[in-house]
Amino acid sequence: MKHGGDLTEAIARHGGAPGSWLDLSTGINPRPWPIPSQLPEGAWQRLPSRTDSEALLYAARKAYGVPVGAGIAAAAGTQALIQWLPCLAAPGPIAIVGPTYSEHALAWRNASHPVIAIDSLDACPDSAVHAVVVNPNNPDGRVTDRATLARVATQLKARGGWLVVDEAFADVDPAVSAVGLCPDLPVLILRSFGKFYGLAGLRLGFAVGAPELIARIATALGPWPCSGPALLVGAAALGDQPWADRTRKQLEDQARKLDEVLVKAGFAIVGGTLLFRLARHPQALRLHDALAKQHIWCRSFDWADDLLRFGLPPDAAGLDRLAAALSG
Amino acid sequence: MKHGGDLTEAIARHGGAPGSWLDLSTGINPRPWPIPSQLPEGAWQRLPSRTDSEALLYAARKAYGVPVGAGIAAAAGTQALIQWLPCLAAPGPIAIVGPTYSEHALAWRNASHPVIAIDSLDACPDSAVHAVVVNPNNPDGRVTDRATLARVATQLKARGGWLVVDEAFADVDPAVSAVGLCPDLPVLILRSFGKFYGLAGLRLGFAVGAPELIARIATALGPWPCSGPALLVGAAALGDQPWADRTRKQLEDQARKLDEVLVKAGFAIVGGTLLFRLARHPQALRLHDALAKQHIWCRSFDWADDLLRFGLPPDAAGLDRLAAALSG
Repeated sequence: MKHGGDLTEAIARHGGAPGSWLDLSTGINPRPWPIPSQLPEGAWQRLPSRTDSEALLYAARKAYGVPVGAGIAAAAGTQALIQWLPCLAAPGPIAIVGPTYSEHALAWRNASHPVIAIDSLDACPDSAVHAVVVNPNNPDGRVTDRATLARVATQLKARGGWLVVDEAFADVDPAVSAVGLCPDLPVLILRSFGKFYGLAGLRLGFAVGAPELIARIATALGPWPCSGPALLVGAAALGDQPWADRTRKQLEDQARKLDEVLVKAGFAIVGGTLLFRLARHPQALRLHDALAKQHIWCRSFDWADDLLRFGLPPDAAGLDRLAAALSG
Repeated sequence: MKHGGDLTEAIARHGGAPGSWLDLSTGINPRPWPIPSQLPEGAWQRLPSRTDSEALLYAARKAYGVPVGAGIAAAAGTQALIQWLPCLAAPGPIAIVGPTYSEHALAWRNASHPVIAIDSLDACPDSAVHAVVVNPNNPDGRVTDRATLARVATQLKARGGWLVVDEAFADVDPAVSAVGLCPDLPVLILRSFGKFYGLAGLRLGFAVGAPELIARIATALGPWPCSGPALLVGAAALGDQPWADRTRKQLEDQARKLDEVLVKAGFAIVGGTLLFRLARHPQALRLHDALAKQHIWCRSFDWADDLLRFGLPPDAAGLDRLAAALSG
C-alpha cells in the first residue's frame, strides 16, 4: 500500500462498506476539532478574501509559535507544498532522512533532483545541497534535536540550499518544533493542520520560513490556494488552545491503551507518536491480512515485513474490536 | 484593483460591514447550487479516497462532455492549475490574447516564459511556442471559434507547445467548449467549477487534455489536491443536469435585467457573458467611486478608464439597489 487513509484498495480486496471498516491506517486524530454544524454560506460562495486569509495566518502564527522575523503561508494541505518546494529550490541533490513519508523523495525526484537516502541527519553528505527530515519522523517517531538541525541548516546555507523540516506530527509535542531557527537559517518548516485536528479532508497546511522564502512560495501558490471553509475552520481551531491542551492529554491516554492491546497480542512497540504507533511482530504481514479480513485496516510497509503502523481507534468499542480481532 | 471578489480593499476605503455591501465585482453566480445543510463528517475528517476522486471525475467528464480519448484532472481551483502549467510546459514564449484575466501572464512570466500580448488568437506570432486564450473571454465575452483554436493548436504542436483554453465561463454556453480538440492536439482546457455553480470558496477546477499531458499535471499536483467537501459537492452539483439547465435560463433573465438597468443609467453594454456584463460609460471611474460610497462594488480596470464590469445582483432587491444608486 502506498499511503494510509484510503480504503479503496482494502474494500476492493476484502469487500464491505466504507462505514463497516475500522480504519487504523492513518495518523489522523479520530476525534476531530468540532466543526460548527453549519458554516456561513459565504465561506462556500465567495472567493476567500485577504481578511479571511490574514485571520487564518494570525491564528497559525500563534498556535505554532512562529517568531516575528519569520513568514508563514497557507496551502491546500502540506502535500501541495511538498509538490512545489523542489521546483522552487536551487538545483542539486537532496538528502532525505528515511525511511519516512514517501512523497518527499517522489516530488524531488520528479523535479530532477538526485535523492540521497540517509538514515540520520548527522549523515548528511557534503554533496547534498538540500535535506529533508520529518520531525518527529513517520513512522518511527524519531526526533532530530535542534542543535543538529541548526548545524546542518548552516552547512546547507553555505551551499545555497534548504533544510526542509516536515513537522506534520509536531502538534503532539510542540517543544520539538524548529520554527525558532527560521529567521536566520534556510529552514522551511511544514505544518499539517489535518492530522492533529482530525480534519484531513479539509486540506490545510502551512510553510514557515524566512520571509523571502515564504514570499516565493506564496507567489508559486498564487491567489486563493485554500478553500473558504479551510480558512474559517482553520482559524477557529488553531485559536482553540483549551481544545489542543485537552486533546494532547486524551491522545496520551488513547496511545497508552493502544500500546497495551498491541503488546498483549505479541507486538513490541518500537516507535511512533501520540497519533500512531509503530509495532514489530515476526508475523506482521500475516496479521495485516488477518485484520483486513475482519475489516480492520492498518499500515504495512514495502521496506519491512515485520512492522505495522496503527492509528488510534476512535473509541473504546474500536479498541475492543482491534483486541478481539488480534486474539482471534 | 487586482481582482474582483475581495471586499477587503473596498471596506478599507469606504467602511461598512462585509454583509452590507452589494458585491458585483465578480463573475460568480450569486444563486449557488444548494449545498446540503450538513455534509457527512467523513468528508471533513478522512483523506479523500480514490473512490471519491473517481466519482468527481466521472461527473465532470459527463458535465463537460469530455471525449473518451482525453484525460481530466481536478485541482483546488483553476488558479492552482494556472500556477502549475508554466512550470510543466516546454521553455519558450507564450502569446496571450488580451486584455484578459491577469493571472495567466503573471504565472508564465514568473516561470521565465516571455509573454507576448496579442489582441486575437489569429495574431499568434511564429515566435510563440505556447498560447493562452480565455474563451469566452473575461471581461469582454469574446468567443474564439473552434476552427481558429484548431489551426493555432496545430501550429503550436509543431513547435512542441500548448494551447491553453481557459473556459472558466463556458458553462453558460457549453457549445463554445473545445474539449473535442483534446485527444488529437496539445490543447489544455481549464474548467472552473466555482463560477457557474456559485461556489468559489469551495476551490475546485479541472484540466482536460491529452492523457499524457493530464498525467503530468496530476503528478505535479500530487495526491489529495482537492478537499473532501469539494469532491462530494462537485460530484453532486456536476451531476445535476436539471439545475444547470434551469440556471442557464435564469442567468439569461438576470443578465437581461442588469443590462436594462445599466443602459438606463447611460452605459453601453459592450460585452460579457451571462455571469457578468462589460459596460462603457465616459464617467466610468467616477461612477465606480460613487457606487463604492454607497457600498456597491463593481470591477474597474487599470487598462481602460471608460469600462466597468458588473456581476449579477443576487435578487430583485439587489438590482433595485444598483438602479437607485446609479440614478442618485
